[in-house]
Amino acid sequence: MPDIASRVYNHHWKIDPIVRSLIDTDFYKLLMCQSVFRNKPDTHVTFSLINRTKSVPLADLIDEGELREQLDHIRSLSLSRGESTWLRGNMFYGKRQMFRSDFMEWFEGMRLPDYHLERVGDQYELTFEGSWPEVMLWEIPALAVLMELRGRAVLRGMGKFELQVLYARAMTRIWEKIERLRKLDGLRLADFGTRRRHSYLWQDWCVQAMIEGLGDRFVGTSNCSIAMKRDIEAIGTNAHELPMVYAALADDDDELARAPYDVLADWQEEHDGNLRIILPDTYGTQGFLDRAPDWLAGWTGIRVDSGDPATGAEIAIKWWKDRGEDPTQKMVIFSDGLDTDKIIELHQQFAGRVRTSFGWGTLLTNDFRGLVPNDTLAPFSLVCKAVGANGRATVKLSDNPNKAMGPADEIARYKRVFGVGAQPKLDVIV
Amino acid sequence: MPDIASRVYNHHWKIDPIVRSLIDTDFYKLLMCQSVFRNKPDTHVTFSLINRTKSVPLADLIDEGELREQLDHIRSLSLSRGESTWLRGNMFYGKRQMFRSDFMEWFEGMRLPDYHLERVGDQYELTFEGSWPEVMLWEIPALAVLMELRGRAVLRGMGKFELQVLYARAMTRIWEKIERLRKLDGLRLADFGTRRRHSYLWQDWCVQAMIEGLGDRFVGTSNCSIAMKRDIEAIGTNAHELPMVYAALADDDDELARAPYDVLADWQEEHDGNLRIILPDTYGTQGFLDRAPDWLAGWTGIRVDSGDPATGAEIAIKWWKDRGEDPTQKMVIFSDGLDTDKIIELHQQFAGRVRTSFGWGTLLTNDFRGLVPNDTLAPFSLVCKAVGANGRATVKLSDNPNKAMGPADEIARYKRVFGVGAQPKLDVIV
Repeated sequence: MPDIASRVYNHHWKIDPIVRSLIDTDFYKLLMCQSVFRNKPDTHVTFSLINRTKSVPLADLIDEGELREQLDHIRSLSLSRGESTWLRGNMFYGKRQMFRSDFMEWFEGMRLPDYHLERVGDQYELTFEGSWPEVMLWEIPALAVLMELRGRAVLRGMGKFELQVLYARAMTRIWEKIERLRKLDGLRLADFGTRRRHSYLWQDWCVQAMIEGLGDRFVGTSNCSIAMKRDIEAIGTNAHELPMVYAALADDDDELARAPYDVLADWQEEHDGNLRIILPDTYGTQGFLDRAPDWLAGWTGIRVDSGDPATGAEIAIKWWKDRGEDPTQKMVIFSDGLDTDKIIELHQQFAGRVRTSFGWGTLLTNDFRGLVPNDTLAPFSLVCKAVGANGRATVKLSDNPNKAMGPADEIARYKRVFGVGAQPKLDVIV
Repeated sequence: MPDIASRVYNHHWKIDPIVRSLIDTDFYKLLMCQSVFRNKPDTHVTFSLINRTKSVPLADLIDEGELREQLDHIRSLSLSRGESTWLRGNMFYGKRQMFRSDFMEWFEGMRLPDYHLERVGDQYELTFEGSWPEVMLWEIPALAVLMELRGRAVLRGMGKFELQVLYARAMTRIWEKIERLRKLDGLRLADFGTRRRHSYLWQDWCVQAMIEGLGDRFVGTSNCSIAMKRDIEAIGTNAHELPMVYAALADDDDELARAPYDVLADWQEEHDGNLRIILPDTYGTQGFLDRAPDWLAGWTGIRVDSGDPATGAEIAIKWWKDRGEDPTQKMVIFSDGLDTDKIIELHQQFAGRVRTSFGWGTLLTNDFRGLVPNDTLAPFSLVCKAVGANGRATVKLSDNPNKAMGPADEIARYKRVFGVGAQPKLDVIV
């Protein structure tokens, strides 16, 4: 049990690295990286940081030199022997040698590529360009660095005991959430909070609190470093960047329409069981499922990551029934902006109808809302996305127009190709 | 900032000493000890532990072996070189060399005498007999050991994170008290919480939180060990044991009536300024002041330690006025069962009429009320008192009959000698 408040107090050290390991990242990044390494190794991509909460002036809050130090430190990291051994030898989702030797050899020699950082108004422009398997690994550490530097900026002026009490209050809050969640029979909950966490130590504390407080209702963490350290399951499957880049690489509308299914065909060659989880919302869930090939209905589950989650789950259940599948044998994974109330509500609403699982993110690992004056520690919506691939812009539509991205003309084209009409706009908190 | 929850979790160590130093005691004990060493060195006394809260079955909660280990450990302690240097060289109440060489030489060689421990029903009988200057030094460590072992017994079954959250809640509570108190202009507040503290680490945390949170409003601690470690003032003057033993030694009623003033005459020879504080309630405040010699009205202040505190302060103010003294130049020290509300009320009530100062004890260093099921960590009223001197029983009347002690016939005699009539009974929480 580290003394988080003391450590925070000591952040005035020359550099206290925020990311200390290449596997201090989400497990699905490594799975996707291996898939990309095998199927699209030569793709040239651009990833870019996007602060969807413009009211948080990151460039005013965070010193550019400090940010560069943190990013440079991440570029100096390489896979340690123990980490490599863990990735090679550990059982993930019931499978040994999840990571192939050729991938591991490449990963052991990998360093993160350079970044481009520029201040634009009160925001930073931070982009990463290069080979997809390398650039994609910037997403999680870059987000974690920005989130934590913003938090450090806010905490800098506080006294030791003021800090201790801040953490005491935040701990009490997490524990009260856990006390409510432990009452749910059959709950399956994982930590998905790496990217927008308050800090590494804090995420690690939250995970340990859930291990003690939730018992087997807590199924694991997306964070490989913490999974290794705490000897628990690493959790995650795949994300929007796969269909987004595959789609950008498509040479015409027919190829574009096929791209999201090509991704999953490649995925199916490598993975089975609980790793066969469909993320259907990149270009609209309903259309994706309507046009999906039958083999996809045989997959284990669907992850609902935008739009109204109950609606998304109902669409999935109906789709499985239409395709002759038994929804009670399927799994719906909720992972969008969850907090205790929503988890309890969804868990109860779908009990007995479909297996549910929850990927709890920012409001687990960064809920300091209301704990400092002017709420300057409240989480905000920061993402790091693939914005280009081989010279073409990427597009995401999502089930919530507030999460859409891409150039307007390309969005129009994608909407036409994927048959996406009007969608309800939902606020994005995190 | 130690990680208290971890330390508590590790209390299953063979022995984790509760008292690690002979100066982990109240400063006034050392002042009184020096006075006794000089004036009454050959007195043979008996001190006894008294649990005024019978509903707390100490002998059921605390293992006798564990208790003996702790007490034996205290008997093994001697003054360290650094502690001796601090006592000899430090400035106390603006005075250097407060402790005389002959006393320090004796103290450096002193070990605490043996104890008598016996289980009686669900309580322990714990007594100490021998030379007054030695036996008196048992009071504070014996109380601290009993209080902390009871807490450890309650905490033993808790998980690591449950414990962390327990402390998080307790820290938040203290901090909220501090946030209220910091608003009081001219507040003078000291920690008097050693004897009934939750633990040493916890008391030390509370003191540090007050240093940060209260600034000048926090004037010091009664605990010598913490005063030395945190480089703050050691606070305290004298206590009931002096008049109680002097009174027991009196050979007739006339000597008895004079005894409380003899104590202060001896004290006046040694101390001046802020150390000249009258503790008038041992045999009833009103009668004590009515019969007091005029030289006592010249003393700096009065400590109100039983009865209704505002009433006690009004009596003191009136007395000073009657004796031609200016109360605004005098000090009233409140030290009985204080908590935030009462401190704020008294501070405001007497602002401008008399200087006030607060010795905040158990509800500072041991307020875990309501934080565990069945409130089994709530503080309770445990004292360790001189019960006999040179073969005679001691008596205390106090301004609250619920704090009185001694054999019934002796109480009757003392009431007659000191002219004490009916007194209002007040609940004793701590």
